[in-house]
Amino acid sequence: MDKAPLSPRRVRDSTVEVTHLVMPNEANVYGTVFGGIVMQQIDIAASIAAMRHARRPVVTASIDSLDFRRPIRVGQAMILRAAVNWAGRTSMEVGVQVLSEDLMTGVRETTNAAYLTFVAVDERGRPSPVPPLQPETDEERRRFSEAVERRRQRLERLRREPG
Amino acid sequence: MDKAPLSPRRVRDSTVEVTHLVMPNEANVYGTVFGGIVMQQIDIAASIAAMRHARRPVVTASIDSLDFRRPIRVGQAMILRAAVNWAGRTSMEVGVQVLSEDLMTGVRETTNAAYLTFVAVDERGRPSPVPPLQPETDEERRRFSEAVERRRQRLERLRREPG
Amino acid sequence: MDKAPLSPRRVRDSTVEVTHLVMPNEANVYGTVFGGIVMQQIDIAASIAAMRHARRPVVTASIDSLDFRRPIRVGQAMILRAAVNWAGRTSMEVGVQVLSEDLMTGVRETTNAAYLTFVAVDERGRPSPVPPLQPETDEERRRFSEAVERRRQRLERLRREPG
Amino acid sequence: MDKAPLSPRRVRDSTVEVTHLVMPNEANVYGTVFGGIVMQQIDIAASIAAMRHARRPVVTASIDSLDFRRPIRVGQAMILRAAVNWAGRTSMEVGVQVLSEDLMTGVRETTNAAYLTFVAVDERGRPSPVPPLQPETDEERRRFSEAVERRRQRLERLRREPG
Amino acid sequence: MDKAPLSPRRVRDSTVEVTHLVMPNEANVYGTVFGGIVMQQIDIAASIAAMRHARRPVVTASIDSLDFRRPIRVGQAMILRAAVNWAGRTSMEVGVQVLSEDLMTGVRETTNAAYLTFVAVDERGRPSPVPPLQPETDEERRRFSEAVERRRQRLERLRREPG
Amino acid sequence: MDKAPLSPRRVRDSTVEVTHLVMPNEANVYGTVFGGIVMQQIDIAASIAAMRHARRPVVTASIDSLDFRRPIRVGQAMILRAAVNWAGRTSMEVGVQVLSEDLMTGVRETTNAAYLTFVAVDERGRPSPVPPLQPETDEERRRFSEAVERRRQRLERLRREPG
Repeated sequence: MDKAPLSPRRVRDSTVEVTHLVMPNEANVYGTVFGGIVMQQIDIAASIAAMRHARRPVVTASIDSLDFRRPIRVGQAMILRAAVNWAGRTSMEVGVQVLSEDLMTGVRETTNAAYLTFVAVDERGRPSPVPPLQPETDEERRRFSEAVERRRQRLERLRREPG
Repeated sequence: MDKAPLSPRRVRDSTVEVTHLVMPNEANVYGTVFGGIVMQQIDIAASIAAMRHARRPVVTASIDSLDFRRPIRVGQAMILRAAVNWAGRTSMEVGVQVLSEDLMTGVRETTNAAYLTFVAVDERGRPSPVPPLQPETDEERRRFSEAVERRRQRLERLRREPG
Repeated sequence: MDKAPLSPRRVRDSTVEVTHLVMPNEANVYGTVFGGIVMQQIDIAASIAAMRHARRPVVTASIDSLDFRRPIRVGQAMILRAAVNWAGRTSMEVGVQVLSEDLMTGVRETTNAAYLTFVAVDERGRPSPVPPLQPETDEERRRFSEAVERRRQRLERLRREPG
Repeated sequence: MDKAPLSPRRVRDSTVEVTHLVMPNEANVYGTVFGGIVMQQIDIAASIAAMRHARRPVVTASIDSLDFRRPIRVGQAMILRAAVNWAGRTSMEVGVQVLSEDLMTGVRETTNAAYLTFVAVDERGRPSPVPPLQPETDEERRRFSEAVERRRQRLERLRREPG
Repeated sequence: MDKAPLSPRRVRDSTVEVTHLVMPNEANVYGTVFGGIVMQQIDIAASIAAMRHARRPVVTASIDSLDFRRPIRVGQAMILRAAVNWAGRTSMEVGVQVLSEDLMTGVRETTNAAYLTFVAVDERGRPSPVPPLQPETDEERRRFSEAVERRRQRLERLRREPG
Repeated sequence: MDKAPLSPRRVRDSTVEVTHLVMPNEANVYGTVFGGIVMQQIDIAASIAAMRHARRPVVTASIDSLDFRRPIRVGQAMILRAAVNWAGRTSMEVGVQVLSEDLMTGVRETTNAAYLTFVAVDERGRPSPVPPLQPETDEERRRFSEAVERRRQRLERLRREPG
């Protein structure tokens, strides 16, 4: 559409925080949250970050492996922090940190770190250009290079797998 | 339960941010979000702030009048920021600021400012003590005094109304 | 659109009754309904009353302050009765009475009285004319005048607040 | 539990009205409500009527055949009116009338008439006595006798079918 | 639309299996699933079978009487198997078998057998032709003839009832 | 609890099929399903398979990387097939194949292949023994060995990451 180069955007321009109170329907009969609910919340938070960066609709292209080390329970809060780590021509990597918070004790624990890639799309669902990412801090530059390495591994993984 | 005075807590200890992506079921057939959905999101964000301050379950005691000045639409994000403005013996006032964000343009607009009171409760639902609030900045002290004035008006309103 | 004056409508033409069975996802871990769920049910019942009067889509413009005096619990019924109290050129005030009913004892308690204003809109979301309201009973005339007074207070409140 | 005979209850003591605004998730891609959503709303309205009569938890024992003659659409209202037609020792028949209402035109159409039976249960799920029903009008007495005949047919149907 | 006769389809071409894990919101406070939830799941499974046969959108035209003999509980699985039993010019009968499965013991019980009729529709909601059904086994031929008999009874029932 | 060795179970004893009709709330404004919804459905289907094998509650321990190659749309069906690939002392690997089905054309496409690990737990959430898996076919034995290799990689990944 527009051919002029898009102006770069900073990491903090698209950072997202979601605090979610866990409901009974999101847990098994023992009150432990389903892994799939955590994944769904991760995808929503990450897609908001990606749309903020791209200012376009996005579709999830991939999610890296996830480990669920500590259970989250009904009545606890889930805190999700999502930020764009890397942006290419039409795709982006978003990192999401998930913490559980026991609202009765204030204890917070990191439960997951997730990496997702999104592709920006136009009205017909075709890949569409996104602005470059402008990392500003050392931390942001480290996350950028790690994302480039994860992207290399993802492309290799896709090459190995049958279409 | 515990008779020792509770140590005061700061405003930032209980501040909550929720970013919510508006879904089709939350809007009328023209894509405008139902006022009741905004109210529900306000109540959830505010109750997390209240629980963070009290470290106890809380029940909503009241919400002040709300004006819906600008419509929020399906596919936009709602951003809710909740903070405890004032804390008494067993009750707290929480202020919530609601913004809409058009993810395709980045335009944000303040759509609501809401004030809710919550009562902390024990396992049997009886009012239960909460820590004092320690405002730190001029802004927090201003919000504290305004909350005291709103509380005065609320108590007067309750006195006027039949039980 | 149509310039002919709209024929007046009676209060009973738009009166709504909703009986709602409270579900686990609508309550905290102690089984007490979230205030936000009550607000959402109030908004839905009230908007049906407003659409019945206006025969147009409506958007919530405001809700007056609400006090939650008695908790409603999972498994209980909420009964909502909504009626148009007043109608102006493009806006209406709807009153909603909320009762809880313990289905095991039959005990009903009034838990809330709410006042909301709605604006009728056309397909593009622009304010659109509504029929006049024809109060028929003394009770309906009393509610009409009280609504006029609440409207005066609302307009004053809006004038005081920054846009 | 209590052996004293339960005092009879009137039809109007347990009559229920539910007005439900149809949401996008309740319809197919062409906007027509799923039959299963209508059935679910019928079951909820009817079970409230049955619990009001029995003042005990109830379980659905059967529903008679249902014809869906006219489609209901997203944005329309469903009106459900449920009343206990007949009560035996531990079971009841509830009749539900379903109307659709086009909120933009005010046109209402009867879409379904449903008959369900419920059994009152105690805490362990065992059948539990319900009060007798006291029909007061000719209409209520006619519905009572028709329910007795439908019960006869249901019992015959159950006898024919393998367990 | 297309006038060429549609090629017949086999029963197994449209057979559907749904395994559903029962959630807290789908049950009463004693953990027993609402009859309406079972009906909704039956309607969804059956409508997928009907759409697979017709390759068109479908609307539920009727459901035969249903008996709920054994309760299903939160945390258990519901297994639904739906197959087209009979197809006419624009309508189809679908049979659904419902089993409950206690995931802790592996015990399965048949809880319901349901018969629904669907009408295939075009974009404007008008009845639209469906392919003939080609029963292949004795069991399928038996179900076909039983469906023809049920259809006769349904048409008679509709004739008796006022429109 | 019980110390006697558990008798082995076959792959087909725990195989699960879920057919899911995609709803408007599960997609973005362009009608494309959120990746998080696919993940949630994968987790539910896989956890039913794991519970069928273990006959105990299970918690999701990990999910391997997922690529979303083809979009699924509102009104299409998602078909999920889950089977236990490998079982250890208290954990299991479940493989899930996801297909989309365009109900109007009958076209099915493989959209995802997912691998999840689950841990069986007792009432207090502690790891609990599961029966051995008895692969019967060459295909099942191949999936068993591949699962052992994926497990090796997962353990290595966990060793590398900070707790």
